[in-house]
Amino acid sequence: MVTFMSGLEFWKSTFKGFQDAGKLYGIKTVYTGAQQFDINQQVSVLEEVIAKKPAGIAITAVNGKALAGPINKAIAQGIPVVVFDSDSPDSNRNIIVQTGNESAGRVAADTLAKNIGSSGEVAVLYVAGTPTLEQRAAGFKAEMQEKYPNIKVVASGNYSGEQMDANKAAAGIIQANPNLKGIFAGNSPGALGAIVAVKEANKKNQVKVVGFDADNSLLDAIKAGDAVATIAQGSYNMGYWSMNFLFQEKHELMNPVDGWKKNGINPLPSYVDTGVNIITKDNADLFYTKK
Amino acid sequence: MVTFMSGLEFWKSTFKGFQDAGKLYGIKTVYTGAQQFDINQQVSVLEEVIAKKPAGIAITAVNGKALAGPINKAIAQGIPVVVFDSDSPDSNRNIIVQTGNESAGRVAADTLAKNIGSSGEVAVLYVAGTPTLEQRAAGFKAEMQEKYPNIKVVASGNYSGEQMDANKAAAGIIQANPNLKGIFAGNSPGALGAIVAVKEANKKNQVKVVGFDADNSLLDAIKAGDAVATIAQGSYNMGYWSMNFLFQEKHELMNPVDGWKKNGINPLPSYVDTGVNIITKDNADLFYTKK
Repeated sequence: MVTFMSGLEFWKSTFKGFQDAGKLYGIKTVYTGAQQFDINQQVSVLEEVIAKKPAGIAITAVNGKALAGPINKAIAQGIPVVVFDSDSPDSNRNIIVQTGNESAGRVAADTLAKNIGSSGEVAVLYVAGTPTLEQRAAGFKAEMQEKYPNIKVVASGNYSGEQMDANKAAAGIIQANPNLKGIFAGNSPGALGAIVAVKEANKKNQVKVVGFDADNSLLDAIKAGDAVATIAQGSYNMGYWSMNFLFQEKHELMNPVDGWKKNGINPLPSYVDTGVNIITKDNADLFYTKK
Repeated sequence: MVTFMSGLEFWKSTFKGFQDAGKLYGIKTVYTGAQQFDINQQVSVLEEVIAKKPAGIAITAVNGKALAGPINKAIAQGIPVVVFDSDSPDSNRNIIVQTGNESAGRVAADTLAKNIGSSGEVAVLYVAGTPTLEQRAAGFKAEMQEKYPNIKVVASGNYSGEQMDANKAAAGIIQANPNLKGIFAGNSPGALGAIVAVKEANKKNQVKVVGFDADNSLLDAIKAGDAVATIAQGSYNMGYWSMNFLFQEKHELMNPVDGWKKNGINPLPSYVDTGVNIITKDNADLFYTKK
């Protein structure tokens, strides 16, 4: 498994899934990656991995275009490649395993609607220019419009992705919309920022917060009742199913049509949405990352 | 595996995938379904299947709302259920395994663009009111608009789904658009109808046809050069991966979080697009259904 920002908490659960599936099949799993958010570094790491001729590679691409070359090189050498989380759509990869952010945003909308009683004014916090957060916000708005005629998304707050900035954006929205009943923030720092803004405005009983992702500090906030829920990506699923796809392709266990392999027929699904879990006070304890 | 219109050629390949994966794990597979496109009949069949307490059920739903009840009953009894092809979104199913029709339409657009040289006028034939064909047409149009600035979709022809009617729609479009260079038809009879219309207009060298699905008669037409390609659904993949998901959930091989099962955490991906294959003269022989 090759990642970028390889120290990120998020990947631990992904690699755990990869390992668990590997154990089923007696496969040795190795975790590596670029320590930084650095294109050249990840290209180098992937080149080194290819040189070791592994039985398969699961990779999340810091930059889809830059990684396409080495991904195609691996595939040309007969090494099965699964791309997970961050895609390299222009490469010759057969499959992408990731969170469907648009549908995750819809789950966030359903969760907030349930908590505010299906009517009233709500807002969304997102990061312009970051596709995953834009897609979550778009899914949130689409779901509200299609399913909840009595809920109005009155504000879309753009923030940098950091807590302080989300705090400011949320405070402005709360002030401008005195009847606001809910906020969905597209990442974990955003949710923490919104929570602080709601507290500062003394509106904890009026404005419900739904977050995204599951840092331990956000889980604490949920248990304290400061946010009603957060939407957690299926990070374990990404690793677990990536291994299953690699293993089965490598050993050619399937036979979609006779001669599939030499004719370049994809034996794998083309796209897998690993889904989300709705974390609330009731199940938050399950999701803490052990230190 | 429970289907509707259980005699359909399409399901043969799906069940073959289900069987192949079942053999890997030593699982007995049984195929059944409603012979007709009949809601009550499929509900009855599913009820009978549940009564036999199988280790898992893969089902395609003739009607998502009507099947939700019995699907939920199976799940409540602890029987893992995978829904494939035709969804039952309001049920408590954990996963849907199907063709992403919007992305399949995009593949059709790329295929047609490649064959007409990335510029000129094209048309699409679809069936209004049939979501799968509407999604294919929408994906086709979106891809043309986003990726091919010199290709214009000049007509959208609505037909009943039958060959004769597609023939009429295509003939009208060809007559009204003398410069037409290509037609994408959203199902196999539609492609066959378009092929006849192109021949009747003596425009075989000018108007390229891309179809959808892979009946033997359409494969014959591709080999004869009457259509340049057809986009075939991953019907085998649907069955193959449905079995893998059922087996792994049943035996709880994964562990996304400790206590996932009793806490209702979904251990499966939420959505799987089983992808498509582009069938041309070069690989058509692989896709014939054996009688």
